[in-house]
Amino acid sequence: MKSVIGKNITLSLYGESHGSAIGVVVDGLPAGIKVDTDFMAQQLDKRKPKGKISTQRQEKDEFAITSGVFNGYTCGTPIHITMENKAQHSGDYQPQFPRPGHADYAAHVKYSGFEDYRGGGHFSGRLTAPIVAAGAIAIDILRSKGITIGTHIKKCQHIEDRNFENFAEDIALCNSQYFATLDKTAGENMQQHIEAAGADCDSVGGILETCVLGMPAGVGEPYFNSMESVLSHYIFSIGGVKGIEFGKGFGFANLFGSQANDAFEMQDGRIITKTNNNGGINGGISNGMPLIFRVVVKPTPSIFKEQNTVNLETMENTVLSIKGRHDPAIFHRARVVVDSLTALALLDLLIQRYGERWLAE
Amino acid sequence: MKSVIGKNITLSLYGESHGSAIGVVVDGLPAGIKVDTDFMAQQLDKRKPKGKISTQRQEKDEFAITSGVFNGYTCGTPIHITMENKAQHSGDYQPQFPRPGHADYAAHVKYSGFEDYRGGGHFSGRLTAPIVAAGAIAIDILRSKGITIGTHIKKCQHIEDRNFENFAEDIALCNSQYFATLDKTAGENMQQHIEAAGADCDSVGGILETCVLGMPAGVGEPYFNSMESVLSHYIFSIGGVKGIEFGKGFGFANLFGSQANDAFEMQDGRIITKTNNNGGINGGISNGMPLIFRVVVKPTPSIFKEQNTVNLETMENTVLSIKGRHDPAIFHRARVVVDSLTALALLDLLIQRYGERWLAE
Amino acid sequence: MKSVIGKNITLSLYGESHGSAIGVVVDGLPAGIKVDTDFMAQQLDKRKPKGKISTQRQEKDEFAITSGVFNGYTCGTPIHITMENKAQHSGDYQPQFPRPGHADYAAHVKYSGFEDYRGGGHFSGRLTAPIVAAGAIAIDILRSKGITIGTHIKKCQHIEDRNFENFAEDIALCNSQYFATLDKTAGENMQQHIEAAGADCDSVGGILETCVLGMPAGVGEPYFNSMESVLSHYIFSIGGVKGIEFGKGFGFANLFGSQANDAFEMQDGRIITKTNNNGGINGGISNGMPLIFRVVVKPTPSIFKEQNTVNLETMENTVLSIKGRHDPAIFHRARVVVDSLTALALLDLLIQRYGERWLAE
Amino acid sequence: MKSVIGKNITLSLYGESHGSAIGVVVDGLPAGIKVDTDFMAQQLDKRKPKGKISTQRQEKDEFAITSGVFNGYTCGTPIHITMENKAQHSGDYQPQFPRPGHADYAAHVKYSGFEDYRGGGHFSGRLTAPIVAAGAIAIDILRSKGITIGTHIKKCQHIEDRNFENFAEDIALCNSQYFATLDKTAGENMQQHIEAAGADCDSVGGILETCVLGMPAGVGEPYFNSMESVLSHYIFSIGGVKGIEFGKGFGFANLFGSQANDAFEMQDGRIITKTNNNGGINGGISNGMPLIFRVVVKPTPSIFKEQNTVNLETMENTVLSIKGRHDPAIFHRARVVVDSLTALALLDLLIQRYGERWLAE
Repeated sequence: MKSVIGKNITLSLYGESHGSAIGVVVDGLPAGIKVDTDFMAQQLDKRKPKGKISTQRQEKDEFAITSGVFNGYTCGTPIHITMENKAQHSGDYQPQFPRPGHADYAAHVKYSGFEDYRGGGHFSGRLTAPIVAAGAIAIDILRSKGITIGTHIKKCQHIEDRNFENFAEDIALCNSQYFATLDKTAGENMQQHIEAAGADCDSVGGILETCVLGMPAGVGEPYFNSMESVLSHYIFSIGGVKGIEFGKGFGFANLFGSQANDAFEMQDGRIITKTNNNGGINGGISNGMPLIFRVVVKPTPSIFKEQNTVNLETMENTVLSIKGRHDPAIFHRARVVVDSLTALALLDLLIQRYGERWLAE
Repeated sequence: MKSVIGKNITLSLYGESHGSAIGVVVDGLPAGIKVDTDFMAQQLDKRKPKGKISTQRQEKDEFAITSGVFNGYTCGTPIHITMENKAQHSGDYQPQFPRPGHADYAAHVKYSGFEDYRGGGHFSGRLTAPIVAAGAIAIDILRSKGITIGTHIKKCQHIEDRNFENFAEDIALCNSQYFATLDKTAGENMQQHIEAAGADCDSVGGILETCVLGMPAGVGEPYFNSMESVLSHYIFSIGGVKGIEFGKGFGFANLFGSQANDAFEMQDGRIITKTNNNGGINGGISNGMPLIFRVVVKPTPSIFKEQNTVNLETMENTVLSIKGRHDPAIFHRARVVVDSLTALALLDLLIQRYGERWLAE
Repeated sequence: MKSVIGKNITLSLYGESHGSAIGVVVDGLPAGIKVDTDFMAQQLDKRKPKGKISTQRQEKDEFAITSGVFNGYTCGTPIHITMENKAQHSGDYQPQFPRPGHADYAAHVKYSGFEDYRGGGHFSGRLTAPIVAAGAIAIDILRSKGITIGTHIKKCQHIEDRNFENFAEDIALCNSQYFATLDKTAGENMQQHIEAAGADCDSVGGILETCVLGMPAGVGEPYFNSMESVLSHYIFSIGGVKGIEFGKGFGFANLFGSQANDAFEMQDGRIITKTNNNGGINGGISNGMPLIFRVVVKPTPSIFKEQNTVNLETMENTVLSIKGRHDPAIFHRARVVVDSLTALALLDLLIQRYGERWLAE
Repeated sequence: MKSVIGKNITLSLYGESHGSAIGVVVDGLPAGIKVDTDFMAQQLDKRKPKGKISTQRQEKDEFAITSGVFNGYTCGTPIHITMENKAQHSGDYQPQFPRPGHADYAAHVKYSGFEDYRGGGHFSGRLTAPIVAAGAIAIDILRSKGITIGTHIKKCQHIEDRNFENFAEDIALCNSQYFATLDKTAGENMQQHIEAAGADCDSVGGILETCVLGMPAGVGEPYFNSMESVLSHYIFSIGGVKGIEFGKGFGFANLFGSQANDAFEMQDGRIITKTNNNGGINGGISNGMPLIFRVVVKPTPSIFKEQNTVNLETMENTVLSIKGRHDPAIFHRARVVVDSLTALALLDLLIQRYGERWLAE
């Protein structure tokens, strides 16, 4: 249970950046769900590096589904999605020089020197491609149940996007873009900023904000499997994510209870909260309001500036210049991974409540 | 697997605030570990409400261990820790008026009206008492392996504590106090601020910062069971926690990669990082540096100011005045729960790596 | 996950034979199910030692439900069932002399001498009492869904009971008896045989046969979580069980495929099989026919005849005379434990398929 | 968690008989283990159909390892083993006529008609090929720790093989043969018998007996994760297995306790049991004696004789003649699958006790 997650929808992820193939087994989807491979390809396209704000490694991300889908529909047994690796430049990597900010050194200790160090091995962001392919199926299923997910780039250093306002429209707006911001100018400024950082051999971090609309109330568990627990478990799977906050998040530390509480009121015959400081979750359980959370993605650790490191063979201090093809920012590509993992986590919780039959209804 | 967590050390939590007893079954501790019931009592004492900054409900938190310990040592089979509830005032609760910020409404939907609404039922913070008792055993075991944990109150509204400096000393300082701050004046100011909020029928939130010293490098997994994934899963079990960040956390959004990366260097014959922006974790795996993370605890939702809510019987808007005994802040009491869950999470990961025999060595 | 089982309905078992209390936490039952404590007591009564065919240790098996039930209905949070131990005679046990056929020696190695050896500690059959209490709730739920379970004593040495004939009637017949046989004379002969073995300071084994009527087709999974896999996992939890077979079981080794296959045919508008050699399971999945399986329970290892063993302190051969109060047979008491574990296993599989809401419908 | 098994070594199985590929992800093997692909091929060879006693479908079973192995050693991340399907004759299958004894009808209900019916889909015995490939790695690891596994064909209808006598030699003898019997004549008679049944358009069942030598005492858990529970869970994954018994198994029903108990005695400075009726397991935990268990494999359900079934489209009784290429017996091929699953189950339990580092020591 190391590279495996999920109780009802179980994902088994495998692959190394420079191995022959990467992939995922998705176990637990009920039979009878139409699989939209075009949508899967569109989602993968959003994860692809594009333009000057991304790495020049161009993988086609062509995927094959080798099981679990029959005549275009899930047949109820595990779905295996696989992608070949083709565009590796393994010569760029030197195992004895751990790259600062990367998993290299931690992996070297954990795997006693047997790790596949090429391109970060299993730790490579490339492994998020099968997650996105699997997530596309989950997103599609949720959509058929009236649940939609959108993520925008809330902040990149000093540049901030506007908040979600009209949720349905804004989610659609997120999903229509490659570099997803709600405010067009903010997006353009961010992209220029990333490009400039790249030109300076550097990289930048940012904050993503996600909204899930249409979640029914009553999903999640108290204590050990709170919705926050389960969502954060999934989301922290993404290499560069170092923080997550729900609703007001860290802003709660500045509030009084009288400001933080979300008062209930009737609206169109159903109970809503006037404010949504709790981000749609009370006591670990959805309350029917939009789920809102933010995650921070650290600056890509691969930069072309010279850095200090240690030579693992001689155990002496040394200086490293990273080669290869790298992204000056990854949060805009991580966006669709957040959506994917969110969808997979919610689907797992929804099946717990409604049973696997419900999905295929 | 709803109120159950852990793969190697499994916790099963039960109880309601106003039921007859609460408790936890701790499954997976190997035989031969001395159980220090005095330390368990000390840890529980740190969770207790004290002074004017806490609720006036005074539970003695006397616990009984009814299995799994024989002649003072673990005997290798599940440990059951139970506590009777004695000081309930059930009459204070009215099920038809969901309290804003509480789980009442979400629970009402989830449990179709069958929930035990008295005192928040299973959602009550009272359930953290057995977690603290179990956590004390885990903290003790980690300490015997040279791993120590300390949490201080970093921030309460505008009042900030200083950062960790000398880790070993500061951890000891945290653990010697009931209201744990590194700076004495900051702590006094915070307590006055909480007391004032309480006097105003209100409550406040805050940020806790945790340091774990002595974690060996190489623990944790890439992707789905990253150290951040596992720790956040445990920590979000605490009712009021709405955010977690590791190392620089959300601050990473303001940094360039060249500022964020932690350069490696040799120190006294071992590899360290010059900075620790990543909080001791790279690629989901410990790198041997101190683990650093922060969690935000929202203001206690139980306040005595009048609030808007909905009458669940008539489905009409109404106004609610909460009665009972409540805390104007809970983060200072949540501190020891964070320590406990951290210890339990790390123990689970360490057993994965070293085997259960290692613990008893 | 050692003394924990179940994905949707999770059981956490704790206790030692001579500790202060034993119990179980049942996590995952949805809210709104009426809990019939009288039926729980009746089921426990079937597990109790009675007459000359059982041990003279008489525990009252009075149970307390300390959480998860509110106003007579499940409230959706974990149910804790506990029983005090009162009738221990701990002086009867000597840890240095492992009893042949018991877990003593294996436990001594596993727990490095820290095991609670008194009365078999956690290995004691006494731990099946909380399983029966939890199982009673599961049996009750299944009954409300039209699924009934019955187990009779098929064989005790040379004495055989008749086969199931009219399933519904025979299941009712099983459940109406303490010593459950379908043929009255067979039952009387078996009891005399057990009594004679007991008088001779010896014990006997036997075979139980279980029938589950009303299981819908389509439950279970191919491969790793076949219905046989899951049921056997649960049933082998019972200390003395050393074999399980489904349908024709080991008899399949004598058959040709043309004899073994169950032909399909229409009956009253639904598909049935003419024979039921496969015991209601094809490819790991229920086919709508009655589930049929048999388990063998070995003779109680506690006998009063002198036996050879080793003194664990001196590591020398020695001779042991077991004292205390013991059963000359346990299969008649194990019967209700089989029913209980079967119900809990099936409930888990049914929730997977139909969702937790279904149970409370 | 449907097509997933294992806590420390997790297998995710995927594929359908006539899909493009089948495979397994093996998660949890520590880094630094040499992977012997020749041995994997040898083990797969033992699973292949050969001669007149097997199906004429000849798959090459060429496998590719696309991740988790680097420079010939495990690198600590998930191992993906995949095999292409090439020799399918999908035209042989008609979905509307469920084959007696097969999963067809149960699958049809479970998957609401969306199942991949071709060649049994995911239920096909073909899926055991990746299990054997994964199992070969586990067998290899156990061997390096002094633990060996052998399975022979104990019984095919009236023909019986001799019992295990000299365990080490007999295990080697099992592993040196394709059709594994301890007595050469018994093996020849069985093969003639199978061939005759095949010529008569029929099939036969049989009993396999497995011995594991070198298991240390103290592995396994009381109650819910007894060694019998865990082993049976794995073994019942095999489609045709309908029973399992440990040690004397169902024979215990004929014994007195004084005959069934295994007396302890000293031998060469260590504790053994004089007899091994309990098959190396007491109270769910290994006692250091050889593990002995038997499983029954039912006659292959695919026979060429005419059989009664129901037309699922018209819901009318009809007659079916199965076409295609089928085995008149499968137990001789299932033998190596039993070995594989046994090794994988034991490895999981051993890691629990000794930690993942132990494997690579």
